Amino acid sequence: MTGHGISRNSYQDARVLITGGMGFIGSNLAIALVRQGARVTVVDSQVPGCGADPANLDPVRDQVQISTHDIGDADAMRPLVPGQEVIFNLAGEISHVNSMTNPLRDLAINCAAQVQFLDLCRAVNPHATILYASSRQVYGRPQYLPADEEHPINPADYNGVHKHAAEQYHFLLRRQFGMRTICLRLGNVYGPRQAIDQDCRGFIDAFLRIALDGKPIVVFGDGRQLRGMTYVDDAVDAFLRLGLAGPEAAPVYNAGHPTPVTLLEIAQTLSEIAGAPPPQLAPFPADRLSIDIGDFYQDTEKIRRDFGWIPRVGLREGLEKTVQFFRSQQKRPPHADPHPVS
Amino acid sequence: MTGHGISRNSYQDARVLITGGMGFIGSNLAIALVRQGARVTVVDSQVPGCGADPANLDPVRDQVQISTHDIGDADAMRPLVPGQEVIFNLAGEISHVNSMTNPLRDLAINCAAQVQFLDLCRAVNPHATILYASSRQVYGRPQYLPADEEHPINPADYNGVHKHAAEQYHFLLRRQFGMRTICLRLGNVYGPRQAIDQDCRGFIDAFLRIALDGKPIVVFGDGRQLRGMTYVDDAVDAFLRLGLAGPEAAPVYNAGHPTPVTLLEIAQTLSEIAGAPPPQLAPFPADRLSIDIGDFYQDTEKIRRDFGWIPRVGLREGLEKTVQFFRSQQKRPPHADPHPVS
Repeated sequence: MTGHGISRNSYQDARVLITGGMGFIGSNLAIALVRQGARVTVVDSQVPGCGADPANLDPVRDQVQISTHDIGDADAMRPLVPGQEVIFNLAGEISHVNSMTNPLRDLAINCAAQVQFLDLCRAVNPHATILYASSRQVYGRPQYLPADEEHPINPADYNGVHKHAAEQYHFLLRRQFGMRTICLRLGNVYGPRQAIDQDCRGFIDAFLRIALDGKPIVVFGDGRQLRGMTYVDDAVDAFLRLGLAGPEAAPVYNAGHPTPVTLLEIAQTLSEIAGAPPPQLAPFPADRLSIDIGDFYQDTEKIRRDFGWIPRVGLREGLEKTVQFFRSQQKRPPHADPHPVS
Repeated sequence: MTGHGISRNSYQDARVLITGGMGFIGSNLAIALVRQGARVTVVDSQVPGCGADPANLDPVRDQVQISTHDIGDADAMRPLVPGQEVIFNLAGEISHVNSMTNPLRDLAINCAAQVQFLDLCRAVNPHATILYASSRQVYGRPQYLPADEEHPINPADYNGVHKHAAEQYHFLLRRQFGMRTICLRLGNVYGPRQAIDQDCRGFIDAFLRIALDGKPIVVFGDGRQLRGMTYVDDAVDAFLRLGLAGPEAAPVYNAGHPTPVTLLEIAQTLSEIAGAPPPQLAPFPADRLSIDIGDFYQDTEKIRRDFGWIPRVGLREGLEKTVQFFRSQQKRPPHADPHPVS
């Protein structure tokens, strides 16, 4: 066990807490941490639409402690936080579209709950390393590409505004109280345990759902939009590396695949792998166009330099593993919304 | 009356709404607008500690319509918003210190209420010009001086985080719905109707209160910290100019006096004017030091270039007018907190 934020070299016997640990990335992270010998506590209130699925933790069901409290419920959370060496703070709403139709809900989940949770962390465990799952979404429509961590903040929807505010809460803990908080701005992450059966999420969820259904993927616009597609194991690897960071870690790191691919390429590759018909192009619906940000991919030189992080899984391999996972789970969507955003 | 956001040349007969219109800047703005012939509605829920004082509107009491609703109360606000040509959106909490001790309160006032209010504006009056009173506080400790509008966002307290989120809400309305929203990042504003009798506000409030009491002002640190002290008439002038802006107006403008003065110079000048003993220096208390941002003043070339705004009132003249106002009001503080922040 480490005490006052001293770095350790592995997760063997490390006590870690994962908020949002039933979600897509959180559950993959929990599984990886169990395999590395960590003593994992997962907290997830299973807010509808935020990606939580208890089945995501099936592979490690008996090896993690699971709590279903809201992280904003300080009384319920108080026993769970002390003694955790690393807190992977992934709880949150990620839907861009939902945030536009219900910004107060997004504010409550991404800001109010985080304020309360972080205040508790400060009070009962100020020496933990806290990693926050932020998003490329804080940059909005890019002014230059690839976007590095210095890119201006200009979110295109309420979700991005609130994720940025939550980042700032983490910065405040660092600046005001000397806590070790680090924000990861994730790129477009995809892979096993993605919540493809929940509406109003990212385009890749819908692409997967449609391709697994054997239908043609509909790509909005001309399909040439660029994205940095990040396989979930690579995102998990970024969290694992930064969880072992010493005090030299910066407040914020990009973690998205730096080599962009087009939406059409993604759709075509996925259709091939899944045996679905070729993708089709269609005009952008107005509500999606208004929060679309055009091309986007991140500069990840900073996390490579400081922590040696390089994504190892390319698009085809990642999509193959993803399709294989969902086929093996026979986890299929009850119905499909073919029109999500990027 | 103008219809769809067409610019007008004066406020004669213009219908305007001022949120936070009983507060320091809001009330000065209301008085100026009445004098320019506007038909003024003030809304202010008089949240304790946010600077509201019904007496601030005494000079125009019979010439303004006053509502005491919370701007986040959509049902109550719905009748007040339609038909307003300019909405001066000044409602909010501005205390940096209070935001650190009660961030959820700051979040509710500065974010949740604004989300609801702006959603109402979009629904019932999308053609109004909306001016938001933001703050230099969004920049935090400056990376260079003077700070222009491109300076990185790095607030030093919850209040700055939430003011920035509220700015972003205004940007979203502009980007998503083509609304004419403009954010003014005010500098340190001072002058008549400042809430000097409320604790936990800015240093100038405390300086004024102490000097008016005939006591020595205590300046933290070495007194050499720089600030751009903006007399309230100049801040009001910025709002008035931008309220008449056409669609060419940018999303955000600095509006703080670009010529900095030291805290010691402010204290010395004020003591002289008020006939108080000379200021004293004292070490920074820890809770104030942690959110102190060092020197700060703004580059205001953008608002000068686009709208001809130049502050006209220098430090001595402004402080003289301010002291004269409070002496004439015989409005004196019941007690003094000598240790506020900048």
